[in-house]
Amino acid sequence: MAISIRSSFAFTTQAPTDALMQFAVADIPEQHLLSCRTDLTDADSCTRIPAQEDIGERVWARADGRFEVRHEAEVEIRRQIAALDQLEQLRPSEMPAAPVKYLFDSRYCPADKFQSFVEDQFGRTSGGARVEAIRSWVADKFTYTPGSSDASTTALDSFVERRGICRDYAHMVVTLARASVIPARFVACYAPDVTPPDFHAVAEVFLKDPGSDAGGTWQLVDATGMGTAEDIVKIGVGRDAADVSFLTTFGMVELCEKTVEVSRS
Amino acid sequence: MAISIRSSFAFTTQAPTDALMQFAVADIPEQHLLSCRTDLTDADSCTRIPAQEDIGERVWARADGRFEVRHEAEVEIRRQIAALDQLEQLRPSEMPAAPVKYLFDSRYCPADKFQSFVEDQFGRTSGGARVEAIRSWVADKFTYTPGSSDASTTALDSFVERRGICRDYAHMVVTLARASVIPARFVACYAPDVTPPDFHAVAEVFLKDPGSDAGGTWQLVDATGMGTAEDIVKIGVGRDAADVSFLTTFGMVELCEKTVEVSRS
Amino acid sequence: MAISIRSSFAFTTQAPTDALMQFAVADIPEQHLLSCRTDLTDADSCTRIPAQEDIGERVWARADGRFEVRHEAEVEIRRQIAALDQLEQLRPSEMPAAPVKYLFDSRYCPADKFQSFVEDQFGRTSGGARVEAIRSWVADKFTYTPGSSDASTTALDSFVERRGICRDYAHMVVTLARASVIPARFVACYAPDVTPPDFHAVAEVFLKDPGSDAGGTWQLVDATGMGTAEDIVKIGVGRDAADVSFLTTFGMVELCEKTVEVSRS
Amino acid sequence: MAISIRSSFAFTTQAPTDALMQFAVADIPEQHLLSCRTDLTDADSCTRIPAQEDIGERVWARADGRFEVRHEAEVEIRRQIAALDQLEQLRPSEMPAAPVKYLFDSRYCPADKFQSFVEDQFGRTSGGARVEAIRSWVADKFTYTPGSSDASTTALDSFVERRGICRDYAHMVVTLARASVIPARFVACYAPDVTPPDFHAVAEVFLKDPGSDAGGTWQLVDATGMGTAEDIVKIGVGRDAADVSFLTTFGMVELCEKTVEVSRS
Repeated sequence: MAISIRSSFAFTTQAPTDALMQFAVADIPEQHLLSCRTDLTDADSCTRIPAQEDIGERVWARADGRFEVRHEAEVEIRRQIAALDQLEQLRPSEMPAAPVKYLFDSRYCPADKFQSFVEDQFGRTSGGARVEAIRSWVADKFTYTPGSSDASTTALDSFVERRGICRDYAHMVVTLARASVIPARFVACYAPDVTPPDFHAVAEVFLKDPGSDAGGTWQLVDATGMGTAEDIVKIGVGRDAADVSFLTTFGMVELCEKTVEVSRS
Repeated sequence: MAISIRSSFAFTTQAPTDALMQFAVADIPEQHLLSCRTDLTDADSCTRIPAQEDIGERVWARADGRFEVRHEAEVEIRRQIAALDQLEQLRPSEMPAAPVKYLFDSRYCPADKFQSFVEDQFGRTSGGARVEAIRSWVADKFTYTPGSSDASTTALDSFVERRGICRDYAHMVVTLARASVIPARFVACYAPDVTPPDFHAVAEVFLKDPGSDAGGTWQLVDATGMGTAEDIVKIGVGRDAADVSFLTTFGMVELCEKTVEVSRS
Repeated sequence: MAISIRSSFAFTTQAPTDALMQFAVADIPEQHLLSCRTDLTDADSCTRIPAQEDIGERVWARADGRFEVRHEAEVEIRRQIAALDQLEQLRPSEMPAAPVKYLFDSRYCPADKFQSFVEDQFGRTSGGARVEAIRSWVADKFTYTPGSSDASTTALDSFVERRGICRDYAHMVVTLARASVIPARFVACYAPDVTPPDFHAVAEVFLKDPGSDAGGTWQLVDATGMGTAEDIVKIGVGRDAADVSFLTTFGMVELCEKTVEVSRS
Repeated sequence: MAISIRSSFAFTTQAPTDALMQFAVADIPEQHLLSCRTDLTDADSCTRIPAQEDIGERVWARADGRFEVRHEAEVEIRRQIAALDQLEQLRPSEMPAAPVKYLFDSRYCPADKFQSFVEDQFGRTSGGARVEAIRSWVADKFTYTPGSSDASTTALDSFVERRGICRDYAHMVVTLARASVIPARFVACYAPDVTPPDFHAVAEVFLKDPGSDAGGTWQLVDATGMGTAEDIVKIGVGRDAADVSFLTTFGMVELCEKTVEVSRS
């Protein structure tokens, strides 16, 4: 399936301010870039660096005054899609080095605190079936509520308040998967059915795949129900939202515009 | 200088429990291993994997009953030691991809919240001089108080309570460095003057080094005053303590023994 | 029923330190004191003041060195015991002034965050039936785990970790009741079946009682299952554990002894 | 001095929702009411109850649809104003029962965590001089930043972030005073120089007053610098903001209007 993306945002600074941005469709095998174009204020002075796990790239800029970003891409999704509930969990001792860091607590995902809960709530399941049970539980218990969370909301807060937006849903799935000894990471992405249209975020879990050289594969999980493995377009990945914000600034800025349009084409 | 290390720990489980351990002296150029020996319960069923940044290694085990670890190493420190306060800070747009992730918030280091404080307290300094000012501030304001913190204590808690142990000092330095746009990470280590003898932890910051291919080098910082760049022996590195615990278990265990002996030889 | 209590504790200070203690059986109509005796170090310099809601009393002391407390009492429980699930909830507009403060958030009971949860989990019940559903839910989901919590553990932490001791159970009940618009407070108490024997804590909720001048009555709720309205002996009440610690010190002290014996007589 | 107040607010509900409001000028000796008028939607079904410490009153309403409040008052300040830095601190053993509860931790004021900080920062002062040092420190270190805090911001957060609005300043003063063993409470109020005009909040501390029957008197402290003991008009008091919100609702409402005008007359 081909997906068309147009996104833009702009911010203003009162003084020269460093900004790190990650908004572009990642050029990786599972999603084939048919076309891609990015326009940046003062593009000459921007620096592009590979993002985490070499998925996508980041742009460093030193913004002074108004800074604008416009990005257009058309992409064809080519990822292999597995039946999640058929996948097994890797025994820890089988786990390769790369995904291990995604077992650990991160800023928004204090998984250590949820061991009793996952055992009690999901104890009869494991692997992809456990992940599916987690996704279903979050989808059922949470209410999608724009404005109910902010940049300091953790999965612990969301678990109590039972509401949030895509990043909170993703943090909750990541947290409960890690508490289940399943490596889990946060994926910044685009998807066509996100309502209202915006940057999106989902979780991704690492499960056993006998056919893979890496011993396992990453599987997308969207507890909001707005994206699927067929139509999610990855921007980047990280431990949690702290790692893959579309805009991280080192100083005060005012975000004055943000539009995201995603459609099937 | 050569340093001799003997460490051991043991724990018991009531049921088979997965454990991930990281306790061995890292075999990296800055510290030359003269000798090294590790004994593990059921060593045959343990799996060794490279640890984060390929610094040191982790061991996966499935412990059942009593599990013991004994480690001995002799190591010669060969790292280049710079005058910290002479080193400049990389401008963000100069920053290479590898250290960028160490600018972001992690489980115990919510750096985003400290931007006003670092500006107010350390605003006249930058680079190595800022790091030195941070180290000095933490050393001055904090009281080393075993038992005053636990596995859920963050740098935000420590900043308020003004006390802690080595991990809390390291988290505070890491947090204030990141809030200053200086990449900073957590180093699990051994050092001979740690009192009482135990596993130790320090911070490490990434500063400009025109002579380095990477554009910069990592510099050790110990606000507890118990270790120095001359005698710190690295075990591993991570975002914070969540990444490099000597023992992470996925289930209930009882730690029944831990001894660490480190001496100059 | 008559209950016999013997409790004692002792602490040492390195410098003169203020201490506020609340440990004695409250002399209130619902529990008739048959006998009572308290011995204190330097009793002459201690000051007794009424405790919150005039339930029990507090003792101020300025401790220097070792300070000991011994308390003995025999008490007959005379409280009226209602069938909790038959009691209705006061409509807010009927609520008298006195219990209103027990609707608000306190240090360990951030009830505001639990409105979605109580609506989802207990939405079909109200009044005493809601309280009974809350008690049952906490009893079912939590595991009584000495050592799993500390002086900074809130009901939000306990809700996630699903474990704790009596104070954590009481905080959880208080929090979920307040989120249900039922005034709830924390009761420090003695009870004969507490295992291991120690000071105990339970919740108390304010429900409609047409026969009461106050428009309602306070009902004891113990989600640990170790105490009942027939055998709980009140020491004092407060918003939460911050208000009714047996020992609050304004400076460092070391608790060196604590024994509690409670028996039916 | 006479102060004129006009305040109003309105909110809408989607379903019948309980609301507790506290907005009226308190009728207490220190501030003489020259005139006072309150208009409420469906005033007949509202219930007025005395507020905490019998300072001011609260109104219960069951709002359905749009609910409006309009309040006008003219008041003459008659309170005795002491030179804060001349007042001594009560020794704990001298402290009467009434102010003791204002020594304890509350929802937004976790004073227990600040004992090391107050000792280090303010250790040479006590009593009113300590309070004055605290006020001055908060005024100096904090930046008044509307929008930087929300209903879940505690004094611990503010201490780290060094910014906030009146309620955060008041929470910080209350917290540091309590950590100094000085009873401190939160005062909701009006004041003529608040910019932008809004409900205001300040701290109040209990200090020794040999001439008072109560052994001490409450003294107003405004670290924002916008109010003084000469022009602050009290609405009510509580442990912290959790106790004296102008509007507490038990269910979802949308605040659609709020205006406050305060002037010297």
